[in-house]
Amino acid sequence: MKYQYAVIGLGRFGSSLSRELIKLGYEVLGIDKDEAAVDAMEDELTHAVVADSTDDEVLKSLGVRNFDCAVVAIGDDIQASILTAIVLKDLGVKKVVAKALSELHGKVLNKLGVDRIIFPERDMGIRVAHQLVSPNLLDYIELSKDYTIAELSVPKHLCGFSIQQLDPRAKYGCSVVAINKKGGIIIAPSAADVVNENDVMVIIGTNEQVEKFELEVVD
Amino acid sequence: MKYQYAVIGLGRFGSSLSRELIKLGYEVLGIDKDEAAVDAMEDELTHAVVADSTDDEVLKSLGVRNFDCAVVAIGDDIQASILTAIVLKDLGVKKVVAKALSELHGKVLNKLGVDRIIFPERDMGIRVAHQLVSPNLLDYIELSKDYTIAELSVPKHLCGFSIQQLDPRAKYGCSVVAINKKGGIIIAPSAADVVNENDVMVIIGTNEQVEKFELEVVD
Amino acid sequence: MKYQYAVIGLGRFGSSLSRELIKLGYEVLGIDKDEAAVDAMEDELTHAVVADSTDDEVLKSLGVRNFDCAVVAIGDDIQASILTAIVLKDLGVKKVVAKALSELHGKVLNKLGVDRIIFPERDMGIRVAHQLVSPNLLDYIELSKDYTIAELSVPKHLCGFSIQQLDPRAKYGCSVVAINKKGGIIIAPSAADVVNENDVMVIIGTNEQVEKFELEVVD
Amino acid sequence: MKYQYAVIGLGRFGSSLSRELIKLGYEVLGIDKDEAAVDAMEDELTHAVVADSTDDEVLKSLGVRNFDCAVVAIGDDIQASILTAIVLKDLGVKKVVAKALSELHGKVLNKLGVDRIIFPERDMGIRVAHQLVSPNLLDYIELSKDYTIAELSVPKHLCGFSIQQLDPRAKYGCSVVAINKKGGIIIAPSAADVVNENDVMVIIGTNEQVEKFELEVVD
Amino acid sequence: MKYQYAVIGLGRFGSSLSRELIKLGYEVLGIDKDEAAVDAMEDELTHAVVADSTDDEVLKSLGVRNFDCAVVAIGDDIQASILTAIVLKDLGVKKVVAKALSELHGKVLNKLGVDRIIFPERDMGIRVAHQLVSPNLLDYIELSKDYTIAELSVPKHLCGFSIQQLDPRAKYGCSVVAINKKGGIIIAPSAADVVNENDVMVIIGTNEQVEKFELEVVD
Amino acid sequence: MKYQYAVIGLGRFGSSLSRELIKLGYEVLGIDKDEAAVDAMEDELTHAVVADSTDDEVLKSLGVRNFDCAVVAIGDDIQASILTAIVLKDLGVKKVVAKALSELHGKVLNKLGVDRIIFPERDMGIRVAHQLVSPNLLDYIELSKDYTIAELSVPKHLCGFSIQQLDPRAKYGCSVVAINKKGGIIIAPSAADVVNENDVMVIIGTNEQVEKFELEVVD
Amino acid sequence: MKYQYAVIGLGRFGSSLSRELIKLGYEVLGIDKDEAAVDAMEDELTHAVVADSTDDEVLKSLGVRNFDCAVVAIGDDIQASILTAIVLKDLGVKKVVAKALSELHGKVLNKLGVDRIIFPERDMGIRVAHQLVSPNLLDYIELSKDYTIAELSVPKHLCGFSIQQLDPRAKYGCSVVAINKKGGIIIAPSAADVVNENDVMVIIGTNEQVEKFELEVVD
Amino acid sequence: MKYQYAVIGLGRFGSSLSRELIKLGYEVLGIDKDEAAVDAMEDELTHAVVADSTDDEVLKSLGVRNFDCAVVAIGDDIQASILTAIVLKDLGVKKVVAKALSELHGKVLNKLGVDRIIFPERDMGIRVAHQLVSPNLLDYIELSKDYTIAELSVPKHLCGFSIQQLDPRAKYGCSVVAINKKGGIIIAPSAADVVNENDVMVIIGTNEQVEKFELEVVD
Repeated sequence: MKYQYAVIGLGRFGSSLSRELIKLGYEVLGIDKDEAAVDAMEDELTHAVVADSTDDEVLKSLGVRNFDCAVVAIGDDIQASILTAIVLKDLGVKKVVAKALSELHGKVLNKLGVDRIIFPERDMGIRVAHQLVSPNLLDYIELSKDYTIAELSVPKHLCGFSIQQLDPRAKYGCSVVAINKKGGIIIAPSAADVVNENDVMVIIGTNEQVEKFELEVVD
Repeated sequence: MKYQYAVIGLGRFGSSLSRELIKLGYEVLGIDKDEAAVDAMEDELTHAVVADSTDDEVLKSLGVRNFDCAVVAIGDDIQASILTAIVLKDLGVKKVVAKALSELHGKVLNKLGVDRIIFPERDMGIRVAHQLVSPNLLDYIELSKDYTIAELSVPKHLCGFSIQQLDPRAKYGCSVVAINKKGGIIIAPSAADVVNENDVMVIIGTNEQVEKFELEVVD
Repeated sequence: MKYQYAVIGLGRFGSSLSRELIKLGYEVLGIDKDEAAVDAMEDELTHAVVADSTDDEVLKSLGVRNFDCAVVAIGDDIQASILTAIVLKDLGVKKVVAKALSELHGKVLNKLGVDRIIFPERDMGIRVAHQLVSPNLLDYIELSKDYTIAELSVPKHLCGFSIQQLDPRAKYGCSVVAINKKGGIIIAPSAADVVNENDVMVIIGTNEQVEKFELEVVD
Repeated sequence: MKYQYAVIGLGRFGSSLSRELIKLGYEVLGIDKDEAAVDAMEDELTHAVVADSTDDEVLKSLGVRNFDCAVVAIGDDIQASILTAIVLKDLGVKKVVAKALSELHGKVLNKLGVDRIIFPERDMGIRVAHQLVSPNLLDYIELSKDYTIAELSVPKHLCGFSIQQLDPRAKYGCSVVAINKKGGIIIAPSAADVVNENDVMVIIGTNEQVEKFELEVVD
Repeated sequence: MKYQYAVIGLGRFGSSLSRELIKLGYEVLGIDKDEAAVDAMEDELTHAVVADSTDDEVLKSLGVRNFDCAVVAIGDDIQASILTAIVLKDLGVKKVVAKALSELHGKVLNKLGVDRIIFPERDMGIRVAHQLVSPNLLDYIELSKDYTIAELSVPKHLCGFSIQQLDPRAKYGCSVVAINKKGGIIIAPSAADVVNENDVMVIIGTNEQVEKFELEVVD
Repeated sequence: MKYQYAVIGLGRFGSSLSRELIKLGYEVLGIDKDEAAVDAMEDELTHAVVADSTDDEVLKSLGVRNFDCAVVAIGDDIQASILTAIVLKDLGVKKVVAKALSELHGKVLNKLGVDRIIFPERDMGIRVAHQLVSPNLLDYIELSKDYTIAELSVPKHLCGFSIQQLDPRAKYGCSVVAINKKGGIIIAPSAADVVNENDVMVIIGTNEQVEKFELEVVD
Repeated sequence: MKYQYAVIGLGRFGSSLSRELIKLGYEVLGIDKDEAAVDAMEDELTHAVVADSTDDEVLKSLGVRNFDCAVVAIGDDIQASILTAIVLKDLGVKKVVAKALSELHGKVLNKLGVDRIIFPERDMGIRVAHQLVSPNLLDYIELSKDYTIAELSVPKHLCGFSIQQLDPRAKYGCSVVAINKKGGIIIAPSAADVVNENDVMVIIGTNEQVEKFELEVVD
Repeated sequence: MKYQYAVIGLGRFGSSLSRELIKLGYEVLGIDKDEAAVDAMEDELTHAVVADSTDDEVLKSLGVRNFDCAVVAIGDDIQASILTAIVLKDLGVKKVVAKALSELHGKVLNKLGVDRIIFPERDMGIRVAHQLVSPNLLDYIELSKDYTIAELSVPKHLCGFSIQQLDPRAKYGCSVVAINKKGGIIIAPSAADVVNENDVMVIIGTNEQVEKFELEVVD
């Protein structure tokens, strides 16, 4: 049987999350107390209902306890978020994920036993900050406090250079993991592989190495 | 001279962004029309002022035109976001970045010449959806429509296996780019390298390959 | 086929505009989100509907894209005005006209590609100012920065004078283009034509000439 | 001594009116109950004060009774508009002009003895309607129910034609009063005068004649 | 045919007025925009309808123009009171009576041609003030600036006195017009008539005479 | 020492009452929680203070317990009226008078021991009803259920008639108590006294007699 | 016939009270003006209706006059509480109990003849204060200003002591009335009875005696 | 050193609790975000401050972490109550007591580790229900599910009876623990002790025994 998600709160974050889950092939029950929000999503989700998620009888009658995972994606109402989380835990939902609006909110959710707590605006703020300071940085993964994988667009002035010429390992200590070219991706490129405009490099290294590479070579 | 940012709107997204920019070593002028929001951030930013960002005289007197980049991070007021963006473009700010609340809002910002438009809730919704469906997926980069780099935690049942035993390239077509271990990172691990609990693998492959690997091996 | 207008916003300006278009023989679809405004106009217009004009699906379903011209006459909601304008441009409406509430609003509309931007209160303020300072000035057209055509009521003390006696061209440098009398209009009046009470003169000249004539002769 | 105006209500209409009166060389006292509106205008007007115009003591203390003309330009508050008008009439202000928001409001103002009543949105709606239906119509004066003076831009396909060739009097019954050319204005042009692109013609005739000329020749 | 009243505004004053008119044998149409106010009165009046009295079409359709008298008893909304009054006058209602909330409001109503203007709170304030200062004063009529008729309860210490003994005309200059006794009224009492407890005297005189009598004899 | 009044609530009724008490020569302390109401009256009253009358400490500190009479004239807030009344009774104010907004409110005030309860709007409604149905009725006193004194203006068609000719006692059973003429008042007029236009008659009789006289003779 | 209660106001206090009355075997009619409050209780009460309790007609039609006791448990609306109380007394309900929100409110209810007045928050505040300062104090009854019965949990360090060993009468002057043990209650325990962990003692004495015992022995 | 309490929320419950703690000899810091609530209590408490208790910095600067016990007595704001509770627990306050507004709220507080949760309205509702159904029941302690101590006023018809005559133990199975008389309390009364009017009996027994005694003997 398919894995089923209940998403409570169909604002910008919740509706985007729901839509993506559907796209990934899962069943999603969307719940919001606002009729307009439900109307806007009901054609895209498996089910969408107008309901007060802080009322345990309501969630019970919707069968939420049988869902594999429930996501509390309530926008700005901390009280409703907290009460909904406790109802979901009480109902015995296997996995409860909740969006926190502040550190304090996150602490409360944690104490209530919420399995995973998300800070979308905070995390997105951090991510965008990194992208702003390195305009060629398309995306990145922080592997640890020290190591980062970065996806970088290749700037004009590097076109035609081979990996050997750029030699990031020798000069900056970071490795080129892949080069994404229009024609296809080159995983673990060899010294002879050449980067061109519109190519995208994936490099791995310590934060300092990657940053130095970004600033001196790419930027 | 240091690169300077003006961040307009110090809500959850704007304050997180500002804080990270400061942490990355840049100067940040924070602007919000709400005094409480400014008070909460003023110790952390280079400057923080209470001001109406839709008033061009105000932004002029703050010297915003000399900033390298201005970010319109206004929370829920589409009108203020649009009017601020046009004022910033009129003042000749080199780079204007703005947060959009909806597709339509994004279109308007685009027509006004905003250099980069961000949809934090939408993007975060998508990112969280992927993480929910693959519980071992810690983070990922979509390199293209087809290729993905995924950071996966190693589950208990794989502990003690070598890359050779797992053999993801032969079985699933995807490569292990790195293994992040407590003691340090192994870039381009050899066939003999072994994964243990709490290790994190970074793999690269097509979306289908990576997904298959996640579901069959890791999950 | 008849030229068709969509007028969005049926406040004082929009309803007056719609009514006049109907009177001039055109078809008008009136749209407002306020039911009372629509009720008040529905007998006078070709069609009148209650709708949210910032929702592209709604405007599409009303067939607005096939109208020859759409006028955004929204009263006080700058955000709705901007979002409606972008929707109309996106739908491919041939000509989009919009009322601006401020210079900044006007600039945004201009950037969005709105074909014509109107400032009714500003323009009416200017027009009324001119009429206040010259009580005999009924109406006027500014032909250029320098030239004006003015419609002036003839005051009592000029009754019985002929054009020759008034001789505006010699004394003030401005010509009498027409005299509007109860019995009919005299275009390009001859030197012998006489003005009487309740007659209206139309004169043409530079702003200074016309103003001097107004103040010294008519007033 | 200079003619003095008091303008009560510094919204879009009132501030535009005040600004134009100042430009025409008159003294203007601006009054509004909203401090922000007064602040925005105080540098441009002779005086600007925050005051409740429905309080006769306040208006008395401001010396409004000695002004030559007072304009009630209050935006949306019919009650304040009416009470201000009666206070001004009671104080013995020589000329009271007021903006009406509806026919009913206009009737009340009339009964209170207001000397001139203006319907800016209604009048501007009518004016814009005419301009919309004749894209070449720049401006116009309705001389009577039958006669109109129209200012028309000359379209491309008429370039190089002489008045004789166009012959509007013979074909449509309307006369060309003036041609406004970059180099200067030609009043009462002769048959040999030629129109070119960017020229503007001023014609006079009955409404039907002018409309026919607009549609068949110019458009 | 019976005299018909329309009472607009069924608040405390309007409902009391309507109820008394019904009691006096007249027909009353009650109008209020508030449904609860109409519901509360509909059993007591000839007709009671929920309607917006500032809409002339509505009043026309109710046939208000055929009523002998319309009373504008609107509670606290000066604008609605003024607009209703002008609609009633325009409809040609023979007699329009209106309640004023302030002197200024009264002046506007007067200029609009309202036939009679009532200041219930102001008048009741004056009446109660008089009763407070003379506890035996039950009611009074101000005949002119100088003369008053007063209805006074007879205090204990006057019981058993004859008119001759009290002799108000000689001592205070005021006449006893009537004595109201349980058994019946004595009009123009003779010198021998005696007052008792619970009797009520009606006296006439100048204000000073009556006041002196109240204070020295009765109080 | 002068009799002192405290008036709590300076709305239309309270301010009119206070003003009249001052005019009658008494001292008045005005109290209202609204600063604007206090400002408007402070020049006219002995003292005027902004205070919360439901706070017994506040009333105590104002020395209200030493006043001879306190009037609760609070406009629309039944709760504040009731709580103020109980505070005043608790403080031991000799005489407490209160305005009631409804029958129920009046009953509560009565149970609390309020010495006198006034229904201004209700009473004024009744009074105005009587004046409306008899346009010549200027004022009246209801002496009992049966008897009335009425003040009537003399209509044109009665001018020049003597009391003997009118003979109200014989024809209608009611007596003329006084005739108020420009030159002075005639108390107990003789048969030869003549009424003229602008005179005012005071008559006494049973309700039916007075009404009949009003309708048949005067009207 | 069963004793019947009407409970007006179904907030936290009123609904708990109603529920307990039902549990004790009585019939309860619940009344609230808020539909949600009524819906939440209607399955638990004999009857539950949405009604405005300040409207005597409404209470009459519900037959409230025939109830043995009516409780005014209205939450925060003092005015509604007072008006409801007077209606209930007027209807002749035998016993009226009301919750007071303040001393002043209590005084008004008392003057209206309410039979019993309850201050739940005040009383609960006092009760909780006592429990806080003596953590072993489970509950208590204030018999008089001087005497208290206290229910105390037995702390660990007293386990195994006999009444004789504790000897509260000799040492503190207070008697042990009962010991509540898991197996059952011992009323008037003998000197040989032993207390153990989880036992609960009931003692009686003067406040000082009981307090001293609590602090020195138990705590 | 004295035991110190912080009470957060100075509404009806919190202020009563604080006042009683002071009366019992403890130090109390009162905190409320509403200035009026703080003003009303500041003379009675050791300290009283206006502060936002959901801000951990604020509570830290007030030194709340050093208090022995903090009581969250916030009135109606569940969110503020929850966030305050988590801040207090985080600060390491030894004992945190909180008032719950609903079962769900109570569950959240419990999960956050709040040491004691109080439901004042619910508990008071239950207590009042018991008192209503037994009018002679003054107070009671529920010793267990089965046993109760009840304080009962002695009704008239029992006056002069001795304990022997009443014989509650034989007839109803419950013992008389004490008789509270004006002159003093009799603990463990003998068979010869007589009850009189105004005496209060304290009895102990099973719920059924006590109830039966209340209904048959006392009531």
